[in-house]
Amino acid sequence: MQEGRIGVYPEKGQSPHVVVLGAGFGGLRVARSLARRPVEVTLVDRKNYHLFQPLLYQVATATLSPDEIAYPVRNTLHNQQNLHFQLGEVQSIDLNARTVITREMAIPYDFLVVALGGQTNYFGMEDVERHGFGLKDLADATRIRNHVLSQFEKAVTEPDPEKRRAMLTFVIVGGGPTGIESAGSISELIRLVLRKDYPTLDFDDVCVILLERDHRLLLAMPEELGQATLEALRRKHVVDVRLNTAVESYDGHVVRLGDGGQIRAETLIWAAGVRAVSVLDTLGVEQDRSGRVVVEPTLQVPGHPEVFVIGDAAFCKDEEGRPLPMMAPVAMQQASHVAGSIIRLIEGRPLEAFRYKDPGSMATIGRNQAVAHIGRWKLRGFIAWVMWLAVHIYQLIGFRNRLAVLIDWAWSYIFYERAVRLIGPP
Amino acid sequence: MQEGRIGVYPEKGQSPHVVVLGAGFGGLRVARSLARRPVEVTLVDRKNYHLFQPLLYQVATATLSPDEIAYPVRNTLHNQQNLHFQLGEVQSIDLNARTVITREMAIPYDFLVVALGGQTNYFGMEDVERHGFGLKDLADATRIRNHVLSQFEKAVTEPDPEKRRAMLTFVIVGGGPTGIESAGSISELIRLVLRKDYPTLDFDDVCVILLERDHRLLLAMPEELGQATLEALRRKHVVDVRLNTAVESYDGHVVRLGDGGQIRAETLIWAAGVRAVSVLDTLGVEQDRSGRVVVEPTLQVPGHPEVFVIGDAAFCKDEEGRPLPMMAPVAMQQASHVAGSIIRLIEGRPLEAFRYKDPGSMATIGRNQAVAHIGRWKLRGFIAWVMWLAVHIYQLIGFRNRLAVLIDWAWSYIFYERAVRLIGPP
Repeated sequence: MQEGRIGVYPEKGQSPHVVVLGAGFGGLRVARSLARRPVEVTLVDRKNYHLFQPLLYQVATATLSPDEIAYPVRNTLHNQQNLHFQLGEVQSIDLNARTVITREMAIPYDFLVVALGGQTNYFGMEDVERHGFGLKDLADATRIRNHVLSQFEKAVTEPDPEKRRAMLTFVIVGGGPTGIESAGSISELIRLVLRKDYPTLDFDDVCVILLERDHRLLLAMPEELGQATLEALRRKHVVDVRLNTAVESYDGHVVRLGDGGQIRAETLIWAAGVRAVSVLDTLGVEQDRSGRVVVEPTLQVPGHPEVFVIGDAAFCKDEEGRPLPMMAPVAMQQASHVAGSIIRLIEGRPLEAFRYKDPGSMATIGRNQAVAHIGRWKLRGFIAWVMWLAVHIYQLIGFRNRLAVLIDWAWSYIFYERAVRLIGPP
Repeated sequence: MQEGRIGVYPEKGQSPHVVVLGAGFGGLRVARSLARRPVEVTLVDRKNYHLFQPLLYQVATATLSPDEIAYPVRNTLHNQQNLHFQLGEVQSIDLNARTVITREMAIPYDFLVVALGGQTNYFGMEDVERHGFGLKDLADATRIRNHVLSQFEKAVTEPDPEKRRAMLTFVIVGGGPTGIESAGSISELIRLVLRKDYPTLDFDDVCVILLERDHRLLLAMPEELGQATLEALRRKHVVDVRLNTAVESYDGHVVRLGDGGQIRAETLIWAAGVRAVSVLDTLGVEQDRSGRVVVEPTLQVPGHPEVFVIGDAAFCKDEEGRPLPMMAPVAMQQASHVAGSIIRLIEGRPLEAFRYKDPGSMATIGRNQAVAHIGRWKLRGFIAWVMWLAVHIYQLIGFRNRLAVLIDWAWSYIFYERAVRLIGPP
């Protein structure tokens, strides 16, 4: 196992070795925040790129190219000498031996930051997991894009009207931001772009359905923004939104609902739940029901002050005792806090509890339409949409990706186009 | 089988039905040239996009994103009412029944244009086909990109120096334009970009080898341009070019050469041959040893005046009796000719023989370096390189793709970067 150490991190006796697991929003920020600090940092990820997840649905709906929301992690090494990158999938973490085990090697650490993120939560519904589409990584997104476009290609020559309608029925489950953005974007893809691509198809056969088990959309936002979203989706985007509707099962052809109803659909996108990655189960510490590690207010693992957990992998509460949501701003603020805490530990200073400052949240519904909740402000419509665009361009990493996304957005907006309508390599 | 006809092409008694197989350079141009002509056109391809093959090697070497050289075929339908598109893989062609058989349907035709292109020719070397990489479609290109980048990730932690060198040895076979451009681009990727990504690797271990079985490079160009290319590759791009060297076998680890030598290499890219697609064998007509259909001077299939074959699928000779090369300009000129011939047949006018006007050829070696042979002009260096850039940008289809490619080229050129250094979804 020692073979794996070659050239990756310093020999004993040098600076403390900080291992950061995951190059998502949290992990990447921890690594970067430790630049020019007296530590050696090894960042571990199973991908060689950082993925900008908030725009993943736009890859799934043919607006953006996968590479535009992916940023090569090794770019960050060019200007940070104390940073190393190790490609590898974490198999387990041995807290007592202070060692991370990947498929290829064992990586010892002095400090560990677990920022492994989340994965789709199917709540044990194996048939939905098998036949439905999750939306958590680039493979998911391109699978959805290929599948949706293929349904239209098939429908063109399908003589059976019932089969054709099933091919052209797209069910999205989950009324949170991902579900809403996916539903709005698929609906626009179909009505504004594919209508021109398939002049012989009857678009009355097309149906986009959004299912939400609760009584309203966007539960994390004020009620009036959920209501505004509902109206916009129904009116402008012709999305059939069904509230109080739970999914019981899906066999790839028929969605069975909790109320006994059913929908014939060849496509089901599951945006109804996220849980922490399952490798956290190897830690042997307390987890919440989403698999998140229950951490101290300092984000340390109880009994292991040298181990921090952040982002979707961590369960921690705000000052009013509410669990923090699984969202990028939480991960990024925690990352900055933890980078500081590691330096404090090295310097022998006491740690402070993490306090989350809610920067607000937003969701886009479609062209010229979004909702945003920032502090006491509740915005909707065009202003919220422009804010959404600006915030997302700003948060993207890398000038080339920002420029490329801007061009593709302008393209879609001006020409009612989607440039990446490719049924890609299998 | 008749089910497949719904909405795709006209009922009997209407305009003649022209079926075009393949949406490459030839097929797409035939289809477009028949706009506003008294025919209904069905374009059939197994992909839903037109691929700009001359830049495929830049996808393989992380400069361009796959979507930048792919253009959705259905875009061409927006402005051409007599054009229909059918996604499907041609299984066979029944010349007597005047029917094309795809996996899903039978498509009858009045006129047929076969523009199915070529595929990698391994000359029966099954081990090379299994363990080496071809470079004919987007899947090939992304496989090469993922593989090359993965070799560097593996080499970082490989303690055995001999294994590490094999991981970092990249063999390209074939001294034609594709082989030269791939070798030059991989070499630049490594020396200019990956060197920054892998600060702990010893780049003396890296080796790019170009093998050519003939005595010189770029056989289709004048000797002095081949010689200039050889010198540029050896001197500026540190490519180990070996002439008069044939490959005997490759097991994924060791390349055995015709002269008894061998090279340990985990990567072999096969750019040494193209043959016509094998579905042409179902025609039951005369083919050359590359599988190309031997056509009349009018590009018609002997005995079947309603069937034309063009591009890499056709074997035809120039005025001096030399076979035309398997290159895009040939396919495109033949396409224009055939579109005219179909109208002539409909109008009862006699056909003319196809005459190829050689627009010249060019190949890029790397930054600021290319060779070009245009008429009596033999160009090299910076001027040829600028011409190469201009010609390729001009030939790309779609403004968005042109802009995106320009940006990525500028990015690479100015910052010594490759934006798409992603080990993509498996």
